[in-house]
Amino acid sequence: MSSSTSISSQKRLEVILKSYDRIAILTDENVKAQCWHHFDILSPLSTLVLPIGESTKSVKYAEEVWFFLQSKELTRKSLLISVGGGVITDLGGFCASTYMRGIDFLHIPTTTLGMVDAAHGGKTGINANWGKNMIGTFQMPVDVLIFPEVLNSLSNRHFLSGVVEAFKTAVMFNKDLLDFLIAHPSVLQLREKTGWIFEAARTKQRVVKDDFRENNLRKFLNFGHTFGHAFEHFVGNDRFLQHGEAVAYGMLAEMQIAEYKGFFYDFWKNWVDENMPILPINKSHVDEIMYRIIRDKKNSNSLCTFVTPRAIGAGGVELKFTPKQTQNFLETFLPQTTPHEKP
Amino acid sequence: MSSSTSISSQKRLEVILKSYDRIAILTDENVKAQCWHHFDILSPLSTLVLPIGESTKSVKYAEEVWFFLQSKELTRKSLLISVGGGVITDLGGFCASTYMRGIDFLHIPTTTLGMVDAAHGGKTGINANWGKNMIGTFQMPVDVLIFPEVLNSLSNRHFLSGVVEAFKTAVMFNKDLLDFLIAHPSVLQLREKTGWIFEAARTKQRVVKDDFRENNLRKFLNFGHTFGHAFEHFVGNDRFLQHGEAVAYGMLAEMQIAEYKGFFYDFWKNWVDENMPILPINKSHVDEIMYRIIRDKKNSNSLCTFVTPRAIGAGGVELKFTPKQTQNFLETFLPQTTPHEKP
Repeated sequence: MSSSTSISSQKRLEVILKSYDRIAILTDENVKAQCWHHFDILSPLSTLVLPIGESTKSVKYAEEVWFFLQSKELTRKSLLISVGGGVITDLGGFCASTYMRGIDFLHIPTTTLGMVDAAHGGKTGINANWGKNMIGTFQMPVDVLIFPEVLNSLSNRHFLSGVVEAFKTAVMFNKDLLDFLIAHPSVLQLREKTGWIFEAARTKQRVVKDDFRENNLRKFLNFGHTFGHAFEHFVGNDRFLQHGEAVAYGMLAEMQIAEYKGFFYDFWKNWVDENMPILPINKSHVDEIMYRIIRDKKNSNSLCTFVTPRAIGAGGVELKFTPKQTQNFLETFLPQTTPHEKP
Repeated sequence: MSSSTSISSQKRLEVILKSYDRIAILTDENVKAQCWHHFDILSPLSTLVLPIGESTKSVKYAEEVWFFLQSKELTRKSLLISVGGGVITDLGGFCASTYMRGIDFLHIPTTTLGMVDAAHGGKTGINANWGKNMIGTFQMPVDVLIFPEVLNSLSNRHFLSGVVEAFKTAVMFNKDLLDFLIAHPSVLQLREKTGWIFEAARTKQRVVKDDFRENNLRKFLNFGHTFGHAFEHFVGNDRFLQHGEAVAYGMLAEMQIAEYKGFFYDFWKNWVDENMPILPINKSHVDEIMYRIIRDKKNSNSLCTFVTPRAIGAGGVELKFTPKQTQNFLETFLPQTTPHEKP
C-alpha cells in the first residue's frame, strides 16, 4: 500500500537534527521507559519527561515546558521535538508555537492515533477545566516522522483507538484505504502490515494542507468528534474511554442523528460492537453531555454541528441540529443503564 | 499630516460590531473609569475589567480571560475587543489567538504607545517570571481603531512614552514624520496636532504588513528594544521606568554601542535629557541586565543583537556583539550611582 518506511523517517530525522542551533525533547514517562531504545540518536539531547495522562495537557504543564525551553536557552532558531502520544504532541506543539511567539517543532508520534491523525493536523492545544482543547493554536510541525516499530509496545486497545481515526479519514477521503481496512479486520493483521499507517497519514496531511483553517473539506475530519469529545470529556479518564473509542461511538451517533443509511453504517455498528469497550455513559448523563456539546468549538448560532459521510471517499455532509433535537436524540442513543458506573 | 480622524474610526467600529455572532470586551480599571464615556457604543457588551499594571500580563490572567470568553459563550465566529494600553492589547491578542485555536480580535488602544506602535504589530504576549513577552503568538488584529480624544486623560509622562516609539519608527522608515516630530518638540504641540499619530500608525502597519514574521525590514523596529527590554524588565515597575522610557535609553545605548554618529544621535541625547526621567540603573546592576539580554528572543548563537539607524528613513543596521563586548559597553554606559535606588 505504501513505499514509506521507518528508514526514510530516520534519514529525514538526521537532516533535521543538523538544521537547528539547539534542540530539546519533550516526552512522557511511558515513552521514555518503553520506546527510547528506538531513538539512540535523540539520547544526547536535553529531554523533559512529563507524567502520562490527559491531565498533563494543562496550563500548569505548559508553564513547565516553557520554562524548560528557556532554561535550555532555546532561541527562535531552535527546535522542539515531541516524542509521544497526543497529549505530548498537542502540548509540545502549543508550547513551541507560543514560546517566543513560535519556534519550530517536530512530532514523533508513538501511538497509532498520533501517526495516522493527531500529529498531522497543525492543531495544538491544552485543556481548560471547562473544556478539552479549548486553548491552542493552528501551527504546522516542520515534519511528522513515523516509526511503526514503536507500536510494538502499544496494547491492542491503544492500537485500535488509532485505527478508528484511520477509518474516519478513509470513509471521508480514501476509498482504497477503507477497502484495505475492511479487508483486514483483525488487529494482528493491521499490526503486521504498516503501510496503511503511512497512507492514512498522507491522506490526512493532504486534506489539512488544502484547508488548514478548517473552512472547507477539513471539517469532514471532525466526523464523530462533536459527540466524541463530549463523551470523552464527560468520562474524563482514558482507562474507561479513550479518545479513539469516544470517536468510534461519536461516528455511530452522528450517522444515526443524520439518519445515514449507507453500508458503512452497518459495517461500523458491527465493528464497534466487536472492537470497542462498552460506552460507560447512560441516559442519566444526557444533561452533562449536552453541556459539553453546546460549548463545542465547532458550534455557532446555538446550533450543534455534526458530520456524516456522503459517498465513500468523497467527503461528508455537515448538519446542524438544535440543542433540543440533539438532546432528544441522545435520549434514544444512550442506554438506560451502564454496566459499570463512571468513576 | 493626515486625513484620518476618529470619525473614520467610529464608522469602522459600527460596521465591525455588526459582523460577529458575539462580542466581548477586555479592558482595565483605569480605562473603564476614565475613557468609557468615549465608547457608548460598547456599553451594552459583556466586559471583563482587569487590574491595571504589567502583572496583569500573566498566565493567571490569561486563564481568567479564556474563562470569560467561554462563560460568555464566544464561538469561533465571535470577536474580542481589547480597549486599553499595551498590557490589555497584548493579553487580549494572546487570549483571542489561542481561545479555540484563534478567534478574531480588535484593538482600541488608549495610550499613545498603543496607537502608534504596540497595537499594530500582531505581536501578542504575556510575561513569564523569567522574561517579558516570552509567551505569545504572531496574529494580526482585524483592525486597530484610533480615537485620539481618549489621550486627553493621559499624563504627559505616559503620552511621551508613546512619542518615543513614533521617533523610532520615523528614524527608521519615515523622514517626513521625523521632520514633523523634531519641529514640534513640546508635548503640548503634539497633543494638539494628532495627525502624526495616524501617520506613525500607518508607517508601522506598512512595515509589519511587508514583513510579518520579522525576517527582514521589521527587525529595524526593534531599534532600542534589546537594551530597552532588559532595562524595563530589570526595573520591573513602570512607576520608575515605563516601556517607552526604557526604549528611549535603549535607542541611546544601541547608537552608542554601534558608534553611530549621525545627527539623530545628538538630537536624541538631548531629547532624552529633556524629556525622560533619569534611568534608575547603575553599574552595580550590569550582571542582572546581561542576564536578561542573553535571554532576549532576538539573539541566536550566543551573540547579542542590536539595531542602529542607517540613513534616516531608509531602515537600519543589525549588529551583533559578544556578551563580553556588551558587558564592557554597559560598564561605560551606566553611571556609577543612581539618584534613587531601585525599589
